[in-house]
Amino acid sequence: MPLKFAERLDRAQASARGLVCVGLDPDFAKLPADVRGGPEPLLAFNRRIVDATAEIAAAYKPQIAFYSALGKEDELEASIAYIRERAPAALVILDAKRSDIGNTAQAYAREAFDRYGADAVTVNPYMGEDSVLPFLARPDRGAVLLCRTSNPGGRDFQDLLIDGQPLYRRVAERAALHWNEHRNLMLVVGATRPQEMAELRRAHPELAFLVPGIGAQGGDLDAILTAGLNARGAGLLISSSRAVIFAQGGSSAGIRAAALGLHEAINRRRAVLAGEPA
Amino acid sequence: MPLKFAERLDRAQASARGLVCVGLDPDFAKLPADVRGGPEPLLAFNRRIVDATAEIAAAYKPQIAFYSALGKEDELEASIAYIRERAPAALVILDAKRSDIGNTAQAYAREAFDRYGADAVTVNPYMGEDSVLPFLARPDRGAVLLCRTSNPGGRDFQDLLIDGQPLYRRVAERAALHWNEHRNLMLVVGATRPQEMAELRRAHPELAFLVPGIGAQGGDLDAILTAGLNARGAGLLISSSRAVIFAQGGSSAGIRAAALGLHEAINRRRAVLAGEPA
Repeated sequence: MPLKFAERLDRAQASARGLVCVGLDPDFAKLPADVRGGPEPLLAFNRRIVDATAEIAAAYKPQIAFYSALGKEDELEASIAYIRERAPAALVILDAKRSDIGNTAQAYAREAFDRYGADAVTVNPYMGEDSVLPFLARPDRGAVLLCRTSNPGGRDFQDLLIDGQPLYRRVAERAALHWNEHRNLMLVVGATRPQEMAELRRAHPELAFLVPGIGAQGGDLDAILTAGLNARGAGLLISSSRAVIFAQGGSSAGIRAAALGLHEAINRRRAVLAGEPA
Repeated sequence: MPLKFAERLDRAQASARGLVCVGLDPDFAKLPADVRGGPEPLLAFNRRIVDATAEIAAAYKPQIAFYSALGKEDELEASIAYIRERAPAALVILDAKRSDIGNTAQAYAREAFDRYGADAVTVNPYMGEDSVLPFLARPDRGAVLLCRTSNPGGRDFQDLLIDGQPLYRRVAERAALHWNEHRNLMLVVGATRPQEMAELRRAHPELAFLVPGIGAQGGDLDAILTAGLNARGAGLLISSSRAVIFAQGGSSAGIRAAALGLHEAINRRRAVLAGEPA
């Protein structure tokens, strides 16, 4: 029996002794010159990132757009294989924001889970239940549902009030009540508004949140951790992409320092909140 | 100067003398046995479909999931090249339901427009303005924004009432008011509820709608045309996938008959509504 998704998540966080998720967003125009000019530049850059972060990354989150824009799906496949080799306990979350009707959603699930072998995939809720469930049908794989995103446009529809409650809270509620039978559903909750995070945590103590928006997108780490950690000091994956992978020009030392800095800042706060001596 | 998107849409409908959009959803498990066992099965099936429908298809809508699930992006590229050769006036709408924050959305736009050379791409509105605008930045290419989808889950969030108005109407309103500077934005409006179609048409006489849900998903064609055609007897692309491409086992004759039947049924109704003799 393969581990269930929730167990995989626990194991990944225990093995990394932390909550950091490293985004693999190799925007070609921003790649360091030495990898950009070489063979398989996306893979080469990802190997550098994984080498620099394998001990402390609980998860890697490749953003598929940067590969498919260039027709470099093979480098994405090879990057995931490299993660499995160097960081076997880390989760791989394919950031693809997929969504479609039932039979098409099944094809997208095969893309994420069979072709790429991802542990989880990000999913957009707009099309509702039959567009989401195909990503949750395998107890050993997960879906990370967009709830409140950290981009400026996140407010356009997600914050609209329905009987006094914002849409994103409705999304979380429906997901938690109806779609999480296998305990393999996470929510994307941006790091830009700690108050919203606190309310979501109160409403859904059992759910894990993927939290983008630390770093390049702004967001106050301590406030977010205080608001979002569950009773076990976990329940979050704190995702950083550009602020880590392009640190100091995308050098190994820069990436390692940025990832380690985030890892340690998170764990300091966890210790404080747990009442441990700093 | 390349034609603007709205001009491309007009030309496509004029050239096809109709409003049919043929979905290229080559679900591998459903392919006719003769192409499934041969080389490049997705491309072979698509060539059959394009050959059978080139004279009457105003647009083709390949669903990317069926290609990417199998790592067959090359067959999608070759299929689009074949459409350009056989049906040069037809639009190619990449059905990918993309969505992400600004810099990632730009990468997805490059995937759709540069890699695949699509004329338009379907886009999910949940993440708001900065996730949508990158798909609308090129006046010669378009975005088809999900508004009210025809699947059962379409009601889960799209129908929620905000100040008495369903979410999908808010999406349409914001898109029409703020995102359509280049007149290159269309909406996905499912064919399942003519009353909703009529209200959207009244509110947005200037927008074109892509209408899935005829055929395999149900939907009353005459009622939808009556509700959705604009004053010029156009403003719609009526999309059918499974009901056309798998007709009579996916044979050339079956595909041609199903597409032609839809084409003629649409044009009969257009003639009636225009007051022409039947």
